[in-house]
Amino acid sequence: MGSGINRQWIYARKPEAAVGPEHFELREAAVPDARAGEVLVRATLLSLDPASRAWMQAVTYRPMLAPGDVMAGWGVGEVVESNAEGFARGDLVSGEFGWQEFAVLPASQLAKHDKSQRPEHILGVLGVTGLTAYFGMLDVGRPRPGETVLVSGAAGAVGSIAGQIARIAGCRVIGTTRGAEKCAWLTNELGFDAAIDYRTSDFYRRLKAAAPKGIDVYFDNTGGEVLAAALGRMNLFGRVVCCGNVSQYEAAAPASGPAGVPGFLVTKRIRMEGFIVMDFYGRRAHAEAALAAWIVEGKLKAPVDVIAGFDQLPAALAGMFAGRNRGKLMVRV
Amino acid sequence: MGSGINRQWIYARKPEAAVGPEHFELREAAVPDARAGEVLVRATLLSLDPASRAWMQAVTYRPMLAPGDVMAGWGVGEVVESNAEGFARGDLVSGEFGWQEFAVLPASQLAKHDKSQRPEHILGVLGVTGLTAYFGMLDVGRPRPGETVLVSGAAGAVGSIAGQIARIAGCRVIGTTRGAEKCAWLTNELGFDAAIDYRTSDFYRRLKAAAPKGIDVYFDNTGGEVLAAALGRMNLFGRVVCCGNVSQYEAAAPASGPAGVPGFLVTKRIRMEGFIVMDFYGRRAHAEAALAAWIVEGKLKAPVDVIAGFDQLPAALAGMFAGRNRGKLMVRV
Repeated sequence: MGSGINRQWIYARKPEAAVGPEHFELREAAVPDARAGEVLVRATLLSLDPASRAWMQAVTYRPMLAPGDVMAGWGVGEVVESNAEGFARGDLVSGEFGWQEFAVLPASQLAKHDKSQRPEHILGVLGVTGLTAYFGMLDVGRPRPGETVLVSGAAGAVGSIAGQIARIAGCRVIGTTRGAEKCAWLTNELGFDAAIDYRTSDFYRRLKAAAPKGIDVYFDNTGGEVLAAALGRMNLFGRVVCCGNVSQYEAAAPASGPAGVPGFLVTKRIRMEGFIVMDFYGRRAHAEAALAAWIVEGKLKAPVDVIAGFDQLPAALAGMFAGRNRGKLMVRV
Repeated sequence: MGSGINRQWIYARKPEAAVGPEHFELREAAVPDARAGEVLVRATLLSLDPASRAWMQAVTYRPMLAPGDVMAGWGVGEVVESNAEGFARGDLVSGEFGWQEFAVLPASQLAKHDKSQRPEHILGVLGVTGLTAYFGMLDVGRPRPGETVLVSGAAGAVGSIAGQIARIAGCRVIGTTRGAEKCAWLTNELGFDAAIDYRTSDFYRRLKAAAPKGIDVYFDNTGGEVLAAALGRMNLFGRVVCCGNVSQYEAAAPASGPAGVPGFLVTKRIRMEGFIVMDFYGRRAHAEAALAAWIVEGKLKAPVDVIAGFDQLPAALAGMFAGRNRGKLMVRV
């Protein structure tokens, strides 16, 4: 190539609190060339993830984003030009493209997919999102049939899958989210046994009523007040799966942790464990096969929320933190 | 019996903050009779434990103490009268006697010991204290040779054993305590690689210097600021053993948890796990044998701090929270 325009969203400045379009700038660059060992990809779908916000805020499991960087993010696309063995023009691929229309990546950082796969599933239920839910719930949470499982951020990409996996494992599943509409969606569409709006004033009472036998596994996407409430309702030998901390990503300063740490952990022998999905990639193929089978069998729904338009990326990210998405949020380029 | 006087320390009123003699009252009762299936014991040593303070404050793994109760606590003593099979006058026994000179217990709640055993070891290194250190460090913390282990409350009963066990496991061991004298005792007498007074203003810098490769296992007896600092220095896949929360037992209201929860747990894949020693009693004999062998081999010291006089019990408990003991604190009746 070497000709043509590559639109990019640049991470322009660090948000003080809520992230919005003002923290990004649209730039036009030249479409880059693929050198030896590299592949040029045109993005068709770009993923939006709560972790994006954490990448702006601090060093996490990856270096902090710096102003001037192309905004980070995962994508699905097709190969335009390949200078690497194993990839050819037209291949369906995924990788960390960033928020841009074209990306050049080393072949080692790209995954090739069968063209029969739905691109939405590659980014969602069969990608990082679904694998995070799978390994987090089953390997870290270890739910047993008949146990009670609480999932926060349950209408989000990971939460909506994690809750359904706990149902498949034979558990009573409660989700927290924002608003009556999303609560109804969780119970009516996704089969949650109960759903609670965590912003209601009597949240703790509702949680108690929804989990009369206490909570055995809490899959925590949010931290904050739901974590604090869950710790108060955990059963002996309960497991808290620390997956995300989305309630704090927009905080100006790090908040204190919940009052029950470490007190409740000792008295109730609770295990609280953080994880990153990549740690489990040794069993990735097995997990993808299980997820795909559950979809075919009708046991697992993979809700996606697709917004059209590359220019919508910053607004879509802000909307996710305002709680507007249901399931996996992505932008069609 | 049925005659004679049994002096008892009664838990009289709930402390608002620090516990002291004013929260107890000395009472004289009649020495009770052992009915069928029961054993009358005369206490010779009574144990003082940080958990005592938690029992006054809240429901823990046991019901909260109520004013008017005989103060709870473990003891060693000899059988005065037995109405139960398996126990005879003169036997060396241990159990939860409470703070009293004589106690009647069902035989099922008493353990009989070989008279060759040191009574101090029964309450300390070969009792709840040593077993807590053993199972907490080895089963929950799982230290590997070459790793760095931090122990808070390291001059206390559990901490002093837990740190030595980590040394036996081939780790670099750092302890926190109060005061230069106790720091020197940890390194000179107990073989800790480093010891830090957590009340010094540059505590975090000292911790960083003492653990240049970060912390793999943190054995937490204290919660509070040492827990917060440790979380900031934990390595990937680090383990936090939640054993106690002594920094908070005297707090009027529950404190917030450390700011790194759940954030650090996710990004650093930390496992934080509470435990109670009784959960591991299935392997109690094995642990006792290991601890006893280490003592014989000279690998493990079992420091005890024995105060003479039944009347000293309330003051001894207050002294423990003021950091005056080294190793396992007990009162000789």
